[in-house]
Amino acid sequence: MLRIGMLTSGGDCQALNAAMRGVVKGICSKRDDVEIYGFQEGYKGLIYSNFKMLTSRDFSGILTLGGTILGTSRQPFKLMRVPDENGLDKVEAMKHTYHKLNLDCLVILGGNGTHKTANMLREEGLNIITLPKTIDNDLWGTDMTFGFQSAVDIATDTIDKIHTTATSHSRVFIIEVMGHKVGWVTLHAGIAGGADIILLPEIPYDTDVVVDAINKRKAAGKRFTIIAVAEGAISKKDSKLSKKELKEKQEKKKYPSVAYEVAERIQKRTEQEVRITVPGHMQRGGSPCPYDRVLSTRLGAAAAEAILDGDFGKMMGVKNGDIVRVPLAEVAGKLKYVDPDSDIIKEARMTGISFGDK
Amino acid sequence: MLRIGMLTSGGDCQALNAAMRGVVKGICSKRDDVEIYGFQEGYKGLIYSNFKMLTSRDFSGILTLGGTILGTSRQPFKLMRVPDENGLDKVEAMKHTYHKLNLDCLVILGGNGTHKTANMLREEGLNIITLPKTIDNDLWGTDMTFGFQSAVDIATDTIDKIHTTATSHSRVFIIEVMGHKVGWVTLHAGIAGGADIILLPEIPYDTDVVVDAINKRKAAGKRFTIIAVAEGAISKKDSKLSKKELKEKQEKKKYPSVAYEVAERIQKRTEQEVRITVPGHMQRGGSPCPYDRVLSTRLGAAAAEAILDGDFGKMMGVKNGDIVRVPLAEVAGKLKYVDPDSDIIKEARMTGISFGDK
Amino acid sequence: MLRIGMLTSGGDCQALNAAMRGVVKGICSKRDDVEIYGFQEGYKGLIYSNFKMLTSRDFSGILTLGGTILGTSRQPFKLMRVPDENGLDKVEAMKHTYHKLNLDCLVILGGNGTHKTANMLREEGLNIITLPKTIDNDLWGTDMTFGFQSAVDIATDTIDKIHTTATSHSRVFIIEVMGHKVGWVTLHAGIAGGADIILLPEIPYDTDVVVDAINKRKAAGKRFTIIAVAEGAISKKDSKLSKKELKEKQEKKKYPSVAYEVAERIQKRTEQEVRITVPGHMQRGGSPCPYDRVLSTRLGAAAAEAILDGDFGKMMGVKNGDIVRVPLAEVAGKLKYVDPDSDIIKEARMTGISFGDK
Amino acid sequence: MLRIGMLTSGGDCQALNAAMRGVVKGICSKRDDVEIYGFQEGYKGLIYSNFKMLTSRDFSGILTLGGTILGTSRQPFKLMRVPDENGLDKVEAMKHTYHKLNLDCLVILGGNGTHKTANMLREEGLNIITLPKTIDNDLWGTDMTFGFQSAVDIATDTIDKIHTTATSHSRVFIIEVMGHKVGWVTLHAGIAGGADIILLPEIPYDTDVVVDAINKRKAAGKRFTIIAVAEGAISKKDSKLSKKELKEKQEKKKYPSVAYEVAERIQKRTEQEVRITVPGHMQRGGSPCPYDRVLSTRLGAAAAEAILDGDFGKMMGVKNGDIVRVPLAEVAGKLKYVDPDSDIIKEARMTGISFGDK
Repeated sequence: MLRIGMLTSGGDCQALNAAMRGVVKGICSKRDDVEIYGFQEGYKGLIYSNFKMLTSRDFSGILTLGGTILGTSRQPFKLMRVPDENGLDKVEAMKHTYHKLNLDCLVILGGNGTHKTANMLREEGLNIITLPKTIDNDLWGTDMTFGFQSAVDIATDTIDKIHTTATSHSRVFIIEVMGHKVGWVTLHAGIAGGADIILLPEIPYDTDVVVDAINKRKAAGKRFTIIAVAEGAISKKDSKLSKKELKEKQEKKKYPSVAYEVAERIQKRTEQEVRITVPGHMQRGGSPCPYDRVLSTRLGAAAAEAILDGDFGKMMGVKNGDIVRVPLAEVAGKLKYVDPDSDIIKEARMTGISFGDK
Repeated sequence: MLRIGMLTSGGDCQALNAAMRGVVKGICSKRDDVEIYGFQEGYKGLIYSNFKMLTSRDFSGILTLGGTILGTSRQPFKLMRVPDENGLDKVEAMKHTYHKLNLDCLVILGGNGTHKTANMLREEGLNIITLPKTIDNDLWGTDMTFGFQSAVDIATDTIDKIHTTATSHSRVFIIEVMGHKVGWVTLHAGIAGGADIILLPEIPYDTDVVVDAINKRKAAGKRFTIIAVAEGAISKKDSKLSKKELKEKQEKKKYPSVAYEVAERIQKRTEQEVRITVPGHMQRGGSPCPYDRVLSTRLGAAAAEAILDGDFGKMMGVKNGDIVRVPLAEVAGKLKYVDPDSDIIKEARMTGISFGDK
Repeated sequence: MLRIGMLTSGGDCQALNAAMRGVVKGICSKRDDVEIYGFQEGYKGLIYSNFKMLTSRDFSGILTLGGTILGTSRQPFKLMRVPDENGLDKVEAMKHTYHKLNLDCLVILGGNGTHKTANMLREEGLNIITLPKTIDNDLWGTDMTFGFQSAVDIATDTIDKIHTTATSHSRVFIIEVMGHKVGWVTLHAGIAGGADIILLPEIPYDTDVVVDAINKRKAAGKRFTIIAVAEGAISKKDSKLSKKELKEKQEKKKYPSVAYEVAERIQKRTEQEVRITVPGHMQRGGSPCPYDRVLSTRLGAAAAEAILDGDFGKMMGVKNGDIVRVPLAEVAGKLKYVDPDSDIIKEARMTGISFGDK
Repeated sequence: MLRIGMLTSGGDCQALNAAMRGVVKGICSKRDDVEIYGFQEGYKGLIYSNFKMLTSRDFSGILTLGGTILGTSRQPFKLMRVPDENGLDKVEAMKHTYHKLNLDCLVILGGNGTHKTANMLREEGLNIITLPKTIDNDLWGTDMTFGFQSAVDIATDTIDKIHTTATSHSRVFIIEVMGHKVGWVTLHAGIAGGADIILLPEIPYDTDVVVDAINKRKAAGKRFTIIAVAEGAISKKDSKLSKKELKEKQEKKKYPSVAYEVAERIQKRTEQEVRITVPGHMQRGGSPCPYDRVLSTRLGAAAAEAILDGDFGKMMGVKNGDIVRVPLAEVAGKLKYVDPDSDIIKEARMTGISFGDK
């Protein structure tokens, strides 16, 4: 008997169900004696032994379904090794559930935070296989994560729609795209949507440069400017503050989010009206795009193969178009940032996009 | 020679180009001697005699194009009859342009404010034909305006996408839908998207009732609640304030928009996280939906017929599925509200939707 | 106890699930003591007493789901009153199931054929309520059927996509749109997609006129022509044949469908390549459009009200924007055709569309 | 002065305009003295010196526009070196135009056939830069071509829509996907759409195996089977015929296309109805997907850089995520096939997909 636990953790994204379907169909194509334990709402389900027994039937027809049939939750990583107010050591509780159910492997789908916990469980001796899920595409060790392209599609559609209304009025439009620490979604959606200015966490912006870019467009007879700004975009000035100073400054201003901050800085210094669009959680929603369905199905099937091989402690990743097994120890705790000197940034600049830095 | 002026005014929406194409193709199907004057950026173009000469070629291939090829702007209606700081009487300026160009007719596409000005120009003796353009569907005298269904489609798509992420987490999602004075878009998108709670300007809500509805869902095992709120939704308490009192209150709170206000009221009293999505101007963008393309093409062709008949001073409208000519004098200054006692509200309640009122 | 049977019959379409959800949510909003019998695969389920007991939970979350959770099948109406090869009288069998289960009402969702059977069951004394489901919009007694607008959206999207490739090459494109007897979908998708020529069953075409229209476009410098043809479009010549003669002629030629026939007639007489697209059953698929979701939800809730009122033998329909109850006896056996002299046809002609007739 | 000629050749696809915009914006970001010659309708424009002078303005706003603003045509490669019936040597004519206009470089966007001609022109001494355009993704020397992902998205959407109608009836659905020689689009759309059976040119199918797969699904209680078949799919038997024998056989049968052939073979041997959908040229149409917009913009900008470097005779390609310059000599005349033993095929099989071969 092969006993597989499975959980999805962290912010949800598209293709979680598709990936799990790939794992289960993959294993069941080779083995008949499989038991699947679906833990509910992320690590919480593992901690409190809250699970459902699932069969391959449960994974039929969910390829195109957004969200996750297991539910998910965000887990406070830093508190895990310390007993909480009820005296519960959560790591011990997870190990206990794993061993009590006699699991052969735990399949974990998640992003950066999730992988830290996954690696910790691996260090504790559990058999772990992970799948790189995040719209942010910021996981170290893989060229691509599933959810990313779907989020890019939605953010681009937002910019597309704004474009038509922008051409009718004489305005500046700011679209806030998801990404607190990394700018991958904003960068790709910005290029794809034909944004004029793209502001990323990795390239601190200078308000003067942004205002100049807007005014130059106006002077050239263009009626509008479209700015794609990542949630974590930061000005050059603010990027030099300490974490504490920055937090104090932000609390004083109380902008609901970065788009409102950029808007205020710009509005004073251009003569154009500014309008804000915040697609928000839409970017995690809906059916996965075909690209993500293929990617997640492949990663899922590859995970099945790793499990059948008994090759644990690995994240399934993409490297140069191939599906590869990456040691969890190498992945955990590292982020994949946009490199300001990379080709894609250079090419984007060549097509006239300003990153607000020079 | 037939000389037609044309302008689009007010907030833009989908199918403006489709409607103008219908007018021009319609006229040119019967007359060869036509001159078309496209005034730029709404009434501004008429005031300052800023126009382009257009031919039927310019209207080819724009059926599916969002925005307006003429540009638009919002016009401060109340100031029009009084000379401005430069001594310019804008109404006189518009009449002057009309007569100088020897126009036979002025075709005006716009919403509520636009129609007030259009009717004033009619009273001044100009030949006016109007087309009912607004995502709000709030124009008196027509069952339907173009732009409305396209906006409903986009707002519904937003709710659809939020739905999948909502099922993954245990949260309350608030989606802010366009509509300051009337709730048509919110009502239709809310029903179509399966919202659990719909808050409209026409039905003031009671925060207690809203919180109850959320908690009842939670108690029944539903993981999430989706609230579609119109920009102009108002609480029962606030609806009893004078305009001045309300404004003072709002300025003190400084919510960026109504969704943030509702969120704050709810968050304190439910145990669920609240997330906000503001699709904003997206709702005016993109290609018109097929419904709006057919509607605006029909209205445009019907306008052409009215012009050829010399039957001026009319808005083209929809009545019981037929295209009709409605006297401008009847339309101007009136809004079409959602009736809280109408069948559609009753039917929505029967499917379990709460309007937060009882 | 209220015992409701429910079935979907005939070709499937979008919003069947949404409509059933409306009925069930509507009834359950007023009564607690409800039993729902979901008959499988249309009348077949009623004949062979093949059903599932359903609760309101089963109808939760299906608003946006295409297809029908009950399954459907096409039923040979004409054979129903005569015992089949096994001696089974199907009408008697249906009555037997109805009475055996002690049903209070049978809710039937279907199109033209389905309504003939529904009316027959009414005449046999059963309590029947029906909902007008068909992409064809050809049901007598209602201005609109659900499924129609969704099919129009998909057919229009097909034409839109063909448009971009058409502008690149110099070609004639024929898109075959669903509709054997009536041309509603083709007419609306043709107008919405900007088709140059629209061929409908209700307006027999003359090949000479079609070829002329193509060549005139070419002479005017237009690189392409787009033809939207309904499955049941027919030439003037063929429309004069007897049914038998027509069938013989068609069998000799063996075109897979009408688009291939039109293509052959045209290709010989224009110098342009002809390309064919047959979206086929796609037009019945996917999530219902927001328009259909609102319509079907309203019709469903209205059906619930009729059931609670005990007002049977009615189809829920749309009349001038209101939901009305139409006697089944008036509906059965009649089709709602496109009127060649109607306003919409006139308006379409004014925008340059040729119907191939003159 | 930098004189750049540009042409698009072969079947059109999405993102041609986006790629040209990338080239032109890229060059104009570094040089002011640029003349752009846009040859009309592919090589034809070069042969007959039919071109338009374009400026960077002409490439503004076309990022999202499907088709090609230059037009295209298919070119009979094999006839090029031999004077035609008018004594015109087309290769000489193209060289003549190039030299007469004093071009510094010719940018060619096209697929396999186009690249053969491009390489021939390079051998004749012209400065050539090419961009890999094709929905087929079959160009040697690049991991990815633009147009491919957009076509996959459309074909997948077709399968998605068929899925909902398939679940309602008990049927076999065949969707014919573009790809005469290679199966990339069918493979990816098939996996993404959850097809049960995928038939590719690279993996000849056995009708017995296909029928078995269908009947096994039926026996397992699945109501429907979805088959994605590439235009060039071939049975094992037919794959053993000589080209001449195959052609004779096909002419005798006269199927409009492969889906009809597969349908006939299957229908006789399963008890289920078979339905066919042929999205056809739709797959080349519409706005490019965000993935293709980013890819083509990057390739275009990289082409600009190669031109500015004077590094000619190269195709811009993708290798392991980087944009690279591939010698045209290596590319011309080679196709990139789906490898039946590759990982993606293995992974697809693990999720239960049958390729009809075993």
